[in-house]
Amino acid sequence: MPLPRKELFDIPRNVIYLDGNSLGPLPKGAMERGQAVICNEWGQQLIRAWNRADWISLPQRVGDRIGQLIGAPNGSVATGDTLSIKVYQALAAALKMRPDRKVILSDTGNFPTDLYMAEGLIRTIDKGHDLRLSAPEDVAGEINADVAVVMLTHVDYRTGRMHDMAAITAAAHEAGAVMIWDLAHTAGAMPVEIARTNAEFAVGCTYKYLNGGPGAPAFIYVRPDIIENVEPALAGWMGHDAPFAMELVYRPAFSTERLRVGTPPVVQLSLLDAALDVWDQVDMNEIRHASQELSELFISEVETRCPELCLASPRDGGMRGSQVSFTFEKGYAAMQALIDRGVIGDFRSPDIMRFGFTPLYLDKHDCVAAAEIIEEVISNEVWRDPKYQKKAKVT
Amino acid sequence: MPLPRKELFDIPRNVIYLDGNSLGPLPKGAMERGQAVICNEWGQQLIRAWNRADWISLPQRVGDRIGQLIGAPNGSVATGDTLSIKVYQALAAALKMRPDRKVILSDTGNFPTDLYMAEGLIRTIDKGHDLRLSAPEDVAGEINADVAVVMLTHVDYRTGRMHDMAAITAAAHEAGAVMIWDLAHTAGAMPVEIARTNAEFAVGCTYKYLNGGPGAPAFIYVRPDIIENVEPALAGWMGHDAPFAMELVYRPAFSTERLRVGTPPVVQLSLLDAALDVWDQVDMNEIRHASQELSELFISEVETRCPELCLASPRDGGMRGSQVSFTFEKGYAAMQALIDRGVIGDFRSPDIMRFGFTPLYLDKHDCVAAAEIIEEVISNEVWRDPKYQKKAKVT
Repeated sequence: MPLPRKELFDIPRNVIYLDGNSLGPLPKGAMERGQAVICNEWGQQLIRAWNRADWISLPQRVGDRIGQLIGAPNGSVATGDTLSIKVYQALAAALKMRPDRKVILSDTGNFPTDLYMAEGLIRTIDKGHDLRLSAPEDVAGEINADVAVVMLTHVDYRTGRMHDMAAITAAAHEAGAVMIWDLAHTAGAMPVEIARTNAEFAVGCTYKYLNGGPGAPAFIYVRPDIIENVEPALAGWMGHDAPFAMELVYRPAFSTERLRVGTPPVVQLSLLDAALDVWDQVDMNEIRHASQELSELFISEVETRCPELCLASPRDGGMRGSQVSFTFEKGYAAMQALIDRGVIGDFRSPDIMRFGFTPLYLDKHDCVAAAEIIEEVISNEVWRDPKYQKKAKVT
Repeated sequence: MPLPRKELFDIPRNVIYLDGNSLGPLPKGAMERGQAVICNEWGQQLIRAWNRADWISLPQRVGDRIGQLIGAPNGSVATGDTLSIKVYQALAAALKMRPDRKVILSDTGNFPTDLYMAEGLIRTIDKGHDLRLSAPEDVAGEINADVAVVMLTHVDYRTGRMHDMAAITAAAHEAGAVMIWDLAHTAGAMPVEIARTNAEFAVGCTYKYLNGGPGAPAFIYVRPDIIENVEPALAGWMGHDAPFAMELVYRPAFSTERLRVGTPPVVQLSLLDAALDVWDQVDMNEIRHASQELSELFISEVETRCPELCLASPRDGGMRGSQVSFTFEKGYAAMQALIDRGVIGDFRSPDIMRFGFTPLYLDKHDCVAAAEIIEEVISNEVWRDPKYQKKAKVT
C-alpha cells in the first residue's frame, strides 16, 4: 500500500513530527488495545488473563513479530526489560564465550548507556576487562585477537551515520570475536537481515521506529545455533525452563526464552503488540526508499534556506539512517523555537539538531513545511528569545 | 475512613477476588490515568511529555510514594525494571561491600527468582561465591562470619509465614553481613518500617498489594547513609549523574537514582502512580488489623466446613502475612473449580491453595461466601470433573 499511512496514527493537528526516532507517535490500534488490556483484561479477567488473554506468551509472540522486521527466525528474539538490560545480557554472555580475552571494543559514537552497561559489567566481574573505544570510522581496523566482543550501534544516534554490519561482523569473526549489534535506530527504519550477518547477538528498543510507546520493552536476538552456550547472567524465573514448577535451582529454558528475566510488562507489551500491526501492511524496503527521498528533500531545502546550519549526517543516503542532523551552535534554543511552532525534532548535546524521517506518517509536504519554519526560526534569529534558552530536564 | 473501599476498584460482579497477592485488581483511578497517559500524554504531547507531563521525574515521585508505605525516607526508593533485576542490583552491590566473604545466605522459602538471580550473579562473577539455603526457621542460626549477604523474602509466597525482620537484620549485622529484604508480599499488606530495621537494601514488586497492574515496575530501597558505597552493577544512563549530557564515561547519580537503569516504563509507572492514590485515604495499621480479622474468619469457616483442607499458614496471625494457604492433594483442580465459581485464589506447586486477603475490597461477607463455595467444591468433590484437571500454562 502506498505511503504515508497517516490514518493509522493519532498525531495532533499543526504538528510535523520529526522525532519518531526518539519516541514514535501513538498508533490508533495501540490506543484501543490500551483500553482493552487495562479495562477488560486486567480489570475483568484479573489474574485469569495470564491464561485467558494469553499474557504468558505475549513476550514470545511480540518477539517473533519483531524478528520478522529484523530478519530473525521465529523463537530467536526475546522481549522485555530495557535496552540497557538487554545490552548487559548480551555482553555478559559474550564474555563467557571468550574467557581468554579481555577487551570489549566499541566506538565513541555508541549511545552512552551501552558503554555504561559495559563498564558496570566489567566492574562486577572485576577481572581486568577493558572497554576500548575507537573512532567510529576506525573500528574495523581495531579488531584484533585481544578482542572478546565487538559491541556497536548500527546507526549513530547523533549523526545517523551507519556502520557496515556485514563487513564489521565478518572482521569480528575473523579475529575470533563475538559480535553484538544495537539496532535501536535500525529496527523499523530500514530492512535488516540480522541472521544473515551471522552476528551472535542483537539488541534494540521499540519506542522509536516501532512506535511501542514511552518505555516500551526492549528485545534481544540470539543466533539460534549458539543458544545452548548462552549463560544468562540475569537468571530470572521467566527464563527458567519451568517457571511455575518453582524449583529452587535455575535451569535455563532451551530457547531464547532464557533471556527473559522477571514478570513481563503486560500493558506496555500489549501496546507494542498493537503498534506492530502497522507493519502488517507496509513493506520495509518501501519505507527505506521513501525515508531516503524525504531526507534528501529535507537536506536540500534546509541547506538552501539556512546556510547557518551545517549537515552533521552523511551526505550519502546509503550511509545514513532515517534521521538528518545539523549542527548549530544555538541548536538547543533553536529547537525549542521550532517545537513551539509545531516542528518537533530534538537536540543532542552539544550542538546537534536532530530530525527523524518516518514515511509512515510524513510526506514531502511535511518536509518542505518544516524547512520553511526552520528558515523562519534561523533567519529571523527567533532562537534569541530568552524563553528558549532555559534548559529543560530532558533535552 | 472505614474499610473496605470497594468503590475505588473495578471488580467484576460475582467475583470474590482472593488473589490480590498475585495481581491486585484495577483501581478506577488507574483506568482513567491509563487513558490519559496513552491518549493525551503520549498521543498529543508526544516527546514533549518528558518535560510537560514530567515523565522524567515519575520514577522518583513514585519511589517516594512507595517509600511512605514502607517506612523509607524520600529519595531512598528507586522504581523501574522488575523485582528480579532489583534483587540483582542489591545483591551485586552488597557483595562489593563484603569482598572478603563468599556466602549469600537465603532460605528454601524464598521465591525462586531471587535464588536464580543470585545464581546468575555468582556465575557472572565466577569467584567461588556460594548460595547457601537454610530452612526458613533456621536462618538466623546460620548467619556467621562467612556470610556476606543475608537475602530473604519477608513473607513466604506459599505459606504466608513471616520472618522477624528486626531480629534477623540484627543477627546479620552482628555477624557483619549485609541485609536484603524482599518485600513482595509485604508492601501494601502491612505496616513496615524498613529504615528502622537498619537493613541496607529492600526490594519489592508493585503488582500485588499495591495494585499497580500486570508487570508493574519494581522498587529498590537503599539505606541513605550507604548510597555512596553502592556500586551499580547495572550502570544504565538513567542512573547517570547527568543522563542528557551523553558523556562517554559513567558517573553514578549521588542518590538512589543511581539504581535506575534504562528508559522508564512510563505507561506502567503512570498506572502505578494512580493506583497509589488509594493509600492516601487508608491507614496501613487498619489494613493489617482488618486483614487479620478476615483471615481468622476465613480459616475458621474453612476448617469447620472442609476437614480435607490442611492449614499451611501459621495459625498465629502475628506470624502470618496477608494470605491464607491450605494444602490439598487435588489443590490444582479444586482451585480451577473455585475460579469457575467466581472464587479466585491461586495454586502453588505442589499442593497449595492460596487465598489473599485485602481489606481494601474484601469484607466478612466475602469471606463467608467464599468458604461456602469452597465447601461445595470440596464436599461434593466437584474437583473430580475432568475439565479441572488440565494444567494451564500459568498455574
